[in-house]
Order: sequence, then C-alpha cells, then structure tokens
Amino acid sequence: MPDATPFIKSYLMTAGPTPLPPRVSQVMAEPIVYHRAPAGVELYARVLRRLPAVFQTANDVLLFSSSGSGAMESAVANLVRPGDPALFCAAGKFGERWIELGEAYGADLVRYEPGWGRRLDPGEIDRVLGERPEIRVAFATLSETSTGIVHDVQAIAEVAARHDVLLAVDAVSGLGAAELRQDAWGVDVVAAGSQKALMCPPGIGLASVSQRALDYAGQRGPATAYYFDWGRTAKAQRKDPPSSPFTPPVTLLAALDVALELIAEEGLEQVLARHALLARATRAGVHGLGLELFGDPDDRANAVTAIELPEGIDGAKVPKVLRDKYGITANGGQNQLKGRILRIAHTGYFGAFDILTSLSGLEMTLRELGAEVEQGAGVGAAQQVFLDAGVPLAA
Amino acid sequence: MPDATPFIKSYLMTAGPTPLPPRVSQVMAEPIVYHRAPAGVELYARVLRRLPAVFQTANDVLLFSSSGSGAMESAVANLVRPGDPALFCAAGKFGERWIELGEAYGADLVRYEPGWGRRLDPGEIDRVLGERPEIRVAFATLSETSTGIVHDVQAIAEVAARHDVLLAVDAVSGLGAAELRQDAWGVDVVAAGSQKALMCPPGIGLASVSQRALDYAGQRGPATAYYFDWGRTAKAQRKDPPSSPFTPPVTLLAALDVALELIAEEGLEQVLARHALLARATRAGVHGLGLELFGDPDDRANAVTAIELPEGIDGAKVPKVLRDKYGITANGGQNQLKGRILRIAHTGYFGAFDILTSLSGLEMTLRELGAEVEQGAGVGAAQQVFLDAGVPLAA
Repeated sequence: MPDATPFIKSYLMTAGPTPLPPRVSQVMAEPIVYHRAPAGVELYARVLRRLPAVFQTANDVLLFSSSGSGAMESAVANLVRPGDPALFCAAGKFGERWIELGEAYGADLVRYEPGWGRRLDPGEIDRVLGERPEIRVAFATLSETSTGIVHDVQAIAEVAARHDVLLAVDAVSGLGAAELRQDAWGVDVVAAGSQKALMCPPGIGLASVSQRALDYAGQRGPATAYYFDWGRTAKAQRKDPPSSPFTPPVTLLAALDVALELIAEEGLEQVLARHALLARATRAGVHGLGLELFGDPDDRANAVTAIELPEGIDGAKVPKVLRDKYGITANGGQNQLKGRILRIAHTGYFGAFDILTSLSGLEMTLRELGAEVEQGAGVGAAQQVFLDAGVPLAA
Repeated sequence: MPDATPFIKSYLMTAGPTPLPPRVSQVMAEPIVYHRAPAGVELYARVLRRLPAVFQTANDVLLFSSSGSGAMESAVANLVRPGDPALFCAAGKFGERWIELGEAYGADLVRYEPGWGRRLDPGEIDRVLGERPEIRVAFATLSETSTGIVHDVQAIAEVAARHDVLLAVDAVSGLGAAELRQDAWGVDVVAAGSQKALMCPPGIGLASVSQRALDYAGQRGPATAYYFDWGRTAKAQRKDPPSSPFTPPVTLLAALDVALELIAEEGLEQVLARHALLARATRAGVHGLGLELFGDPDDRANAVTAIELPEGIDGAKVPKVLRDKYGITANGGQNQLKGRILRIAHTGYFGAFDILTSLSGLEMTLRELGAEVEQGAGVGAAQQVFLDAGVPLAA
C-alpha cells in the first residue's frame, strides 16, 4: 500500500505518459483485430490518413512500434553515415539524446550546447553552420521536456534552409502542444511519440519525413538499421492499402485512432490555443506564488512548465510529498536539475482544473516543507488568467 | 459494413495477434500509470521478475517497446559487426528475416536454407560450422510461423555448443507454445514478442540474453544501435529497482503482467501440454478431412498447423470465405505459399472448441469452393483426440 492517506483519488500530472481520455482507454479493451484483416487494414490506413494534419504536413508519417526515442533513432540512422559531420543542438536531457544517437551511429559530431534551460539561439546555429559548410544535417528539439523550454524551430529551420541543411526536430513532447508547422516552416523530419499531446499510451513512435530527406537517405546508401529503416516502412505504407512491414501495435493503433479523432473534433488550432492558455495560467500561478520559472523566459512553453523551487527546502521531497500526501504524480527535475525544479505538465488531455489541482497541491506541499507560501495565491492568479481569457472552460 | 451475413460473432484465429483473455483486455482500460512512480516501477519490476520462467532461464530478459522483429534486430545488432561471418538458418519467411537483418548489419553471410517447409537439419549445421570454423554466431528459428514447422532447437544448440558458436533463436511465435528450455539446452539468445503465446497485444519485444552473449557483444565493441543496444537496457534493468532506458509501453506492461500471471497460474508445463494437445487434435482433424499437412512431418508444430489445400480449388479464396462467410479470421500462406496452404493457429488463449470451430469453418468453406469434403469428418477426428486424451477441457 504506497498511499496511507484516507483519500482514494489520484492524479496523473506528468509530461508523459499523460492522462488518457476515457474513450481512448476503453477502446483498448475491445476485441483485438488482426492487422491484415479488413478491419485492421482500415484501422491502420485511417491512422496514417489522420496523422499528417497534426504535423501540419503533406508528408507520409512513418509509424513504428517503439517509444519516441525509436523515431529519433530512425532520423539519425537514416541521415547519418559513419564519419558524416552533423550538427547536434542540445539544451537539456532530450537534446543530449540526439548526441548519444549521433555517437552510436559514428557521426563526426559538431555540438552546440548553450546549457540546460537556455533557448537555442538561431544566430549561433547560423554561425556554426557557416563555419562548417560540409554539414548537411542538423538535429534540434521543439519542446525540451527536461527544462520546459520550447525552442524557436521556425527560426532554426530558416537558418538550416539558408545553409541547405536538413533539419530533424524532436517533437516528442511538443507535437500538438506547441505550434509546429512542419511544411510551412520547412522542417524535414519531425520525430514524435504517442504518449504526450497525442493522448495515447506510449508505444508508437512517429517520424514525419519529407521526400527530400527520404531521397537524401536513399542517396547515402543503405542504413545500418532494419526495423527503423525509413525506406522499408515508407514503401509498405505507400502500398494501396497501406501495410506495415512488422506487426503493428494494434491496440495502440485503436487508441491513436480515437485520440486523433478527438483532436480533429476539437480542432488543432483550438488544441494549441488550449495548451497555450493552460500554460499561461500555470505561469501566472507560479508567479502568484512568488516563485520563478526555470531557464530562459519562454512564452511558448506550452507542454510543461518548469518551476525553480525555493531555496531552503529539500526540493527532491516536493514530488514525493505531492505524490504520497496529495495523490498527485508530477515530475521533479532530471539529472543535474534533480531537487531544483518541479515540472507542471499540461500536455494532452488536460483542463483548467488540472492546473488548479497541481497548483493547490504545490502550495500545500511547499508549506509542508517549510516554505512561506500564501495558500491560494497561485491558484487565484491562475484563475484570473482563465477569467480574463473569457472562453468557456468546457467543451 | 464488411460483413453482410446475419450472424454477428467473429473469431480471431490467427497466429498473431492472438486472442486476448478478458482480464488482459480489461486491464488496458484502467488508468494509465507513470512508469517512474511507485506503481509503475513495481509493474515493470514484476514483469521482469515473471518473464524468465517462461524462457526457462536465469537470464535477464531484456524488454523493448517494439515488435518481435525489434528483439531479433537486437540480436544481430549486438552480435554481428560488419564483415563478421555468421550462420543464418532459414526455412521460411521468418528465417529469411534473420538473413535480411544480417545483410543490414553487414555480416559475411553464411546461409543454410533447406527450403520452406523443410526442417533445419542439425547434421547440416554441424557440417557448415565445421567448414567455417571462424563463425562465432548462428541464427535459427524455433517455430517458423510461415510453415508451421518447429525446428529442433535442442539439437541445433548441441551442435552450436560443440563448435563454440553462440546461438540466437527466433522464438517469437514459439515461446510458450513449443518447448524451449533455454538454459538447459544452452541457447544464448531467445527473441520473442508479446502477441503470440504470451496472450498480449503486439508491442513488446523480448530478448533473453545469456551473460556469455552479453560479454561477447561487449568485447566486440559498441553496436551501431542505441535503442536496441543490449548494454544500455541490461544496465537499466539491473538497477534496484529496475528502470527502463526509454518510456516503456505501460498499458502493454499491465497486459503482460496479467498474462504472465495467468500462465503462472496454469503452469508452464500445463500450458505447453495444452498447446500440444490442441495441435495433435488439429492434425488429426486435417487427416480426418483427407488433407495433408504442409512440409516435413512435425509432431512438435504446436503453435500453428499448416495444411496443404486440395488441388482444384482456388486456395487464395479459403481465408477469404472463412472470414467473409463464417466470421473466422485465419491465416493463408505467405509469399510463395499464398493460395497453397491454410494455417490453423493454436497459440496462446486457445481452447478445444476454437480448434473445432476452425475445422468446422474449413469443412464448410472447402465444400463451398467445390472440394469433396465429408462434413464433420475433421471435427469428429479432432474430438476423438480430445476424448482419448482423457483430460478435462476446462480449467
């Protein structure tokens, strides 16, 4: 019994896995289908048809039975050959995953690392690419989950285009939460996962790959990869009807089908606006509590808000007290940020009262740990944002 | 509306995805857990504790968010470096997957291919390994789903041991259906998937890797793989408590946890005996119908039974009529066996009446397509096997 309180409700407030809409949960309990029978083929085709809208692309979105990191690996495996110089931009744990992938695939790594919590500077990227004109591929992050920062992918893509460099972006936690116009901005590859703003369980990795990137990968010769080889999956998905080169995760496809339908019903614009409002209210709540946001100021940090914990309390205890005493599962900091930050998620199936719940729990937890916090101050500030927005907080 | 019959029930009788026990289906509809919170950590640890019993091993079983092919790729990626000679044994579609993986990773391929439907001959493997003493790794298949044949992995492992060769076996469709005593037989690597006899949806790939194989992979230097790198996953799983290097597919972990509990409750011996009885009854049913089994005689083909379809009918129509007219989704032949065979599955959550249903449907379908088939003859022969077994057909 991990929880000794007399209260029975608990709240998943993490940045991934994120909470699931009931319809998404329920569809997974339905009888499983065979992926090569008509119902399974149609399910797969429908998911593939629905995906590009979320990426704002005309690309085929390649679907893998994997975590989001698998989709990221597909980008490195297909775009980098041993000895190839490539630019890796990293300002947090998931940016560093690009670097680790580049090392595994033998890239000649050019690293741009302004530090955790910093925002990638397109001017710096421009300078590095100018100094190393042999670089043909760059890797960056949309929403850096470890710090809450949303990088300016539009500006980075402009720089990459100027240098005729292919840009691959990790949007695992950002897609559907922060604006990303893949085609309009000219982003060649977007890697994503099912368990964030797509409101599904983890287990589906997605790579939206431009024809230019597919062609480049093909010209560079076969990748040392089979499961994550783009050519194999693209060829199978482009059949009529599309087929999967490997057994797809059919229960997760059923979940994603429902979730994409929910996103289409809400409308992507509205989904993004909801995330922006939730994030704005969260930031106001943090300031209302007298706390600071972590890292560079970021008015687009729509997936997760990272909060500097006050000095003088044991920061590592904050997620623990939230969970054990208040039933709220939230993310603390990772690696060097452990004990220094708390992250309040608002990615996917989140509403206004989830933010207020997180802020309430945080207020009580901080007091519990000895910080001077006016109870209700953060919640009140967030409510004011919702009131000022003048929109209904219900569908 | 794909089905215009007035009947509403349908039957999933494929070799993967296989039918799910209701408890497995239902658990996926429960609230999703965060993998780093206590409930998620305990779920992951419990699944890892339960897995080795099914492999009959003391190894750590490495768990990937992937299809079974991902687990197979992990074996090739970790054991083969470019230019390494390695033996690939293939007698069907999934044996050929090993070859494709070997090509992707630049192996110097030594191929032993007796033909689809043939059983791998340990004597031939002995001869090849004797001729090429520089070979250190061999790849083979337990149950070849495309042909129904179960290869003699015990004898192959003895041969491999004699030549001091590491043996990796694809048991994706065989594990839990056909006997495989990994440690007793000395099999270094067993690759498996969640969607066969493990009675779960697809999306979890498993690699049970001996310390000898882990050490060999480590000595050969870093693999050109990150997601499927054994060292990374083994290190994370060996922490206390175990952790996953990437977000694990938590709803599928919950399903696998329940399924492994069901297998433990039934007892692995009993699970294997049930599969053997179902397979024996199926073979008797086929002979009762006056049909022949496909390929080499195989009294261990406990995962799926491949049937030669009679001359003079359009064999490709058999699975179609079964599905459209009788609501039974079964597998026809793949690649060169298309239209030549039908495969009756008995892998995982299958009981006696599933076999009788498949045989009934087949009898009616064959008559429908113009074959002379005595209605009830196959069903009756199968029933006789169940009667003769003298065991209850219920739990």
